[in-house]
Amino acid sequence: MNLLQKTLEGIKPLDNERMIEARNRVNNLTKPVGSLGKLEDIAVRLSGITGNLYPEVDKKMVIVMAADNGVCDANVAAYPQEVSAIIARCMVLGIAGISVFSKLAGAQLKVIDLGIKEELCCEGIENKKIMKGTNNMTRGPAMTREQAIQAVETGIKSVFEAVESGINIIAAGEVGIGNTTTSSAVLAVLEDLTPEEVTGRGAGLDDEGLRHKVEMIRLAIDVNKPDKKDVIDVISKVGGLDIAGMAGIFLGAAYKRVPVIIDGFISSVAALAAVRMASLATDFMFPSHISAEAACGIVLDRLGMEPYLHMNMRLGEGSGAALAFQLIEAAGAMIREMKTFEEMGIQKQEYN
Amino acid sequence: MNLLQKTLEGIKPLDNERMIEARNRVNNLTKPVGSLGKLEDIAVRLSGITGNLYPEVDKKMVIVMAADNGVCDANVAAYPQEVSAIIARCMVLGIAGISVFSKLAGAQLKVIDLGIKEELCCEGIENKKIMKGTNNMTRGPAMTREQAIQAVETGIKSVFEAVESGINIIAAGEVGIGNTTTSSAVLAVLEDLTPEEVTGRGAGLDDEGLRHKVEMIRLAIDVNKPDKKDVIDVISKVGGLDIAGMAGIFLGAAYKRVPVIIDGFISSVAALAAVRMASLATDFMFPSHISAEAACGIVLDRLGMEPYLHMNMRLGEGSGAALAFQLIEAAGAMIREMKTFEEMGIQKQEYN
Repeated sequence: MNLLQKTLEGIKPLDNERMIEARNRVNNLTKPVGSLGKLEDIAVRLSGITGNLYPEVDKKMVIVMAADNGVCDANVAAYPQEVSAIIARCMVLGIAGISVFSKLAGAQLKVIDLGIKEELCCEGIENKKIMKGTNNMTRGPAMTREQAIQAVETGIKSVFEAVESGINIIAAGEVGIGNTTTSSAVLAVLEDLTPEEVTGRGAGLDDEGLRHKVEMIRLAIDVNKPDKKDVIDVISKVGGLDIAGMAGIFLGAAYKRVPVIIDGFISSVAALAAVRMASLATDFMFPSHISAEAACGIVLDRLGMEPYLHMNMRLGEGSGAALAFQLIEAAGAMIREMKTFEEMGIQKQEYN
Repeated sequence: MNLLQKTLEGIKPLDNERMIEARNRVNNLTKPVGSLGKLEDIAVRLSGITGNLYPEVDKKMVIVMAADNGVCDANVAAYPQEVSAIIARCMVLGIAGISVFSKLAGAQLKVIDLGIKEELCCEGIENKKIMKGTNNMTRGPAMTREQAIQAVETGIKSVFEAVESGINIIAAGEVGIGNTTTSSAVLAVLEDLTPEEVTGRGAGLDDEGLRHKVEMIRLAIDVNKPDKKDVIDVISKVGGLDIAGMAGIFLGAAYKRVPVIIDGFISSVAALAAVRMASLATDFMFPSHISAEAACGIVLDRLGMEPYLHMNMRLGEGSGAALAFQLIEAAGAMIREMKTFEEMGIQKQEYN
């Protein structure tokens, strides 16, 4: 059995007993019941994920999947393709958005090259190149099925390594010019939506550019006829290596039972792809922000998630997810460090 | 001239020149223009507040105004009044929500007793008691005009002291059973709204409790006839010491030109009161979350602010504001630590 299959089959439900215990504790902390809103739900789920009533989520890592997209040849992006490599380098130089926010959050940043077109030869970027950019999906599949599986498994393994090194919470980010196009295509196929419904302006297309992008997505789907029931088929034909790699991160995190934070549109499409492969994976995911890329809301809706942050951001890279670490940490700190009325020696019923 | 008057007159506009410079820098960082959304606006405003293109917002303090409200005698709250003192003690013991979140954010926590009913005699709580709880506003003014001014000035002074000790960003929180009632009353008067429009369930009223609370607010306004154009009159008659103290925090922060974060409903009503006294004060304020207390959205609308966090929280204490420190810090880190295309040696026009 290959790693992907083993991972899909190894994802187990949340620890329900521990969640009941956690909800009970949360309800008895010295505050009105429910007054910490989503933090209370996060805390309960952290207990269900980790099996620990006092969950620790302090060893943070952002994993960024870097890959180029052949569909850029079809003029779908506001930026030229070589910007992917430039930004990947900026990340390890500490000057990209995600570097700055990871550092602020006290999170490690791992950048994995799954398929940047040029050779990066840059210290700090992990070379797991599967191909030098995908093929132009408007003319045929972006990659082979084997390449897609390899990318997913690289994502899974990156989580295994992270967890072995002590990481207990992960965020999934990406860089790759053209990846809102592939994400929209994957979303359209998986969820039976039209290209118009799922396509936005990415890093800054004008109206004409947006119309063209929609047409290219429609063309890619027509040419490749992906099978919506076969997620790997969809990703390999109209997706990208970054989407595949991030789907692997989400699956690996569910398998290893560590909480994982979704970033914006591309990350959320990868999360959706992971959930369509293993529905239990959703229980290990946390949203972060609602991206300004229009279809992000659609994906989070399908995932049944309400974003915590409304920052009107659309940078990608994991930048929104990095800002959400502290919210998950706050939930953990709440259940660990606040005291119950009983622990304070106060009769709870007086106050309810 | 008293301290309040001096403070009101000493609030100066944002540094416009520095803001233009900051916007220019933000637009040239290695990311699509506008892609960091609200963080970009925060960064520009931080530059306008501090006069520094590379603003530092790392010395954080939450100031909590603790005070009891005589209107509790009219049965408006889900919790008995002595809970205010219990929670204030929990705060300095490190086990209240705000203690946990302040610590996580790396922020100092200062709890000021402006008017808790009982003697607190608790190490760590600053004793600035003005009265032992306000009077029941359904029977007459909550406090005298002089007491209200004293509370506002205590808030102003708390900021002056904080800034002198090196603090460069402040959040304003509170504790005091009954203070959603006073906040709703102040909001109704200041903004010509009906008690129904501005009143919510606070820490957990049922339908009957909510109806009664609305009636008590209506009664308090009828009995006291506050003059909506005279904010101090409004606060003294139907407000609370905590609202007055927090209004002082917002005014003091604007005077000293340090960014200040609004928490939930009560804090935002205090912010609105400050803005109605000195409209420029709004430029120094940042929202944090949209509280589950229904009228919080109304206040933020009136302030022209869009909250960053949607956590469905309604604890108060400054808890939502404490979670927003990192967002403001992220904006500061962005403009300080990211590089421009020019600094990277890349021609920007290629990418726009």
